Amino acid sequence: MTRDILVGELSESELLARIFPRLRSGTSVLLGPGDDAAIVAAPDGRVVVSLDIQTQDQDFRLLWKNGYRTTGFDAGWKAAAQNLSDINAMGATATSLVAGLTLPPATPVSWVEQLADGLSAAIEFLGATGCSVAGGDLGRGTELSISVAVLGSLAGHAPVLRSGGRAGDQLALAGTVGRAAAGLALLESDVPVESLTIAQRELLDTQCRPVPPLAAGPAAARAGATAMLDISDGLVRDGARLAGASGVVVNLMQPALTGLAEPLAPAAELLGIDPMEWVLGGGEDHGLLAAFPPGVPLPPGFTAIGSLLPGNATTAPVTIAGEAVQASGWDHFVL
Amino acid sequence: MTRDILVGELSESELLARIFPRLRSGTSVLLGPGDDAAIVAAPDGRVVVSLDIQTQDQDFRLLWKNGYRTTGFDAGWKAAAQNLSDINAMGATATSLVAGLTLPPATPVSWVEQLADGLSAAIEFLGATGCSVAGGDLGRGTELSISVAVLGSLAGHAPVLRSGGRAGDQLALAGTVGRAAAGLALLESDVPVESLTIAQRELLDTQCRPVPPLAAGPAAARAGATAMLDISDGLVRDGARLAGASGVVVNLMQPALTGLAEPLAPAAELLGIDPMEWVLGGGEDHGLLAAFPPGVPLPPGFTAIGSLLPGNATTAPVTIAGEAVQASGWDHFVL
Repeated sequence: MTRDILVGELSESELLARIFPRLRSGTSVLLGPGDDAAIVAAPDGRVVVSLDIQTQDQDFRLLWKNGYRTTGFDAGWKAAAQNLSDINAMGATATSLVAGLTLPPATPVSWVEQLADGLSAAIEFLGATGCSVAGGDLGRGTELSISVAVLGSLAGHAPVLRSGGRAGDQLALAGTVGRAAAGLALLESDVPVESLTIAQRELLDTQCRPVPPLAAGPAAARAGATAMLDISDGLVRDGARLAGASGVVVNLMQPALTGLAEPLAPAAELLGIDPMEWVLGGGEDHGLLAAFPPGVPLPPGFTAIGSLLPGNATTAPVTIAGEAVQASGWDHFVL
Repeated sequence: MTRDILVGELSESELLARIFPRLRSGTSVLLGPGDDAAIVAAPDGRVVVSLDIQTQDQDFRLLWKNGYRTTGFDAGWKAAAQNLSDINAMGATATSLVAGLTLPPATPVSWVEQLADGLSAAIEFLGATGCSVAGGDLGRGTELSISVAVLGSLAGHAPVLRSGGRAGDQLALAGTVGRAAAGLALLESDVPVESLTIAQRELLDTQCRPVPPLAAGPAAARAGATAMLDISDGLVRDGARLAGASGVVVNLMQPALTGLAEPLAPAAELLGIDPMEWVLGGGEDHGLLAAFPPGVPLPPGFTAIGSLLPGNATTAPVTIAGEAVQASGWDHFVL
């Protein structure tokens, strides 16, 4: 039986030599890894940029309470997906990402290789085919952390901001909400991962390998979306952000919310939790919440879930059928 | 006596509200912090990008052996400086950076505010006047970590890579080498920080707040530099990288090295260390090592320190007056 090689047993250049061949390359990257910096095409003279960090025991656990072990592939996939989603939410498409890994010396090298595979696979599977891994940084630490900065192109179009919504606009959702939160509840439960049904396991997988709807962001921009953001902290909390930035009230329709709760039943029944909590408060599916002018046909992938109304965005930014709901969802600092 | 407010006592939005006003803004950032992503001008249709991470106890200590406490200002300055240096080393100028902070809940909020001040002050003082802080990410962790991605513009010029050096080229240095390493030795020594002379303290300060020569990179590009990199891991190790990429031997002149060692005497004598170790193996001053065609006048800020010779870049990439020297310097993984 062979022992895993550990990160602390390789030099930085030896580890890089194992990672580089696994990273996706493409034509948008004019100069890839290996120099002081990379060079990426920015065809319309602007570049969209965002940065997100995932840290062990804050954003994921290496070993969850239900026995599931986060794979390197999961960690790489999730890091790519949540960054690609930020570009999507501007109505842009990703051109490249740079990734920084902070690794405890006892991390198996195979885990890091899988992380590189997961980054590349997410880019490919999610349809960000113009995106490549342009470079990055490696360092040591006591906890595992993955920093990704992603660059994107607006291809000549205006960005879709959070602030452009107007009273009377239709409110629509692309992708899913609540599934990653249901998956998180399963991961944090006493129910062993081996005993989950296929439907329950699919919810768990959405937490570990989210599937943001990357075609929907640019489609929304082309269809004239007035405001958009990705739902990373929950429908109510992110809805309140759109409401606050646009100076309107986000009003959700109860039947739409009920429809969003239905796919969560397999986990909700198992754990005895009201699935509406996940629909309203769960982030990390990285669906898109977008506003469209009245009468505009919604682009493919979007479903109507409410509308923007005049009103006080400070005191009651989000309502369901006119009734105020409390902001809930994830805050990184207040637990 | 008032107690420091801690990061764990504020929500993410409360902490962001304290940081944002301290971040430098400018015209290159078309859309700043507050949306899903930022938008930065990329006037020539390309963007130079690099990412670097600094982690507590790997890249800096909050409390050093000599009693010096790393300030938030130091940490912000150093994060900006080392990233700006990567853009400089391509012959480009920085347009923006995005910063991600991983913060233990017990971190004083004032330390984080100083970090934002340090980021902005380094940009200003080092002369990256076209550069702004475009956005970032905040998260919790058990150790403090600062991830910065920096974007830059080549302003229509070709980048200066590591690989373009030719036998016969002049080899030149801009900025300093060895000072940050001397400063690190002082920080890690038993000699109390309060007892240091002004000259010793200046070396310590170079470790905490390096001063990369940001005008020199674009000047080298305009002067026709054939190869360039920034010295982050030591003259011999980074020299070997230039040698390997260009397929030449980097030959250093002994008198130039002796001249570089002289300013290190105040620390070398105190600690009983040969300053040549710091000249050859010390990184983190972020000076530039560049090759220029024979006969080309060196641009302002550069000093001749050797030449590129034909020879075997694999077995003896770096020589001093023709004698091979061993690669030394910092490796993040092998200690």
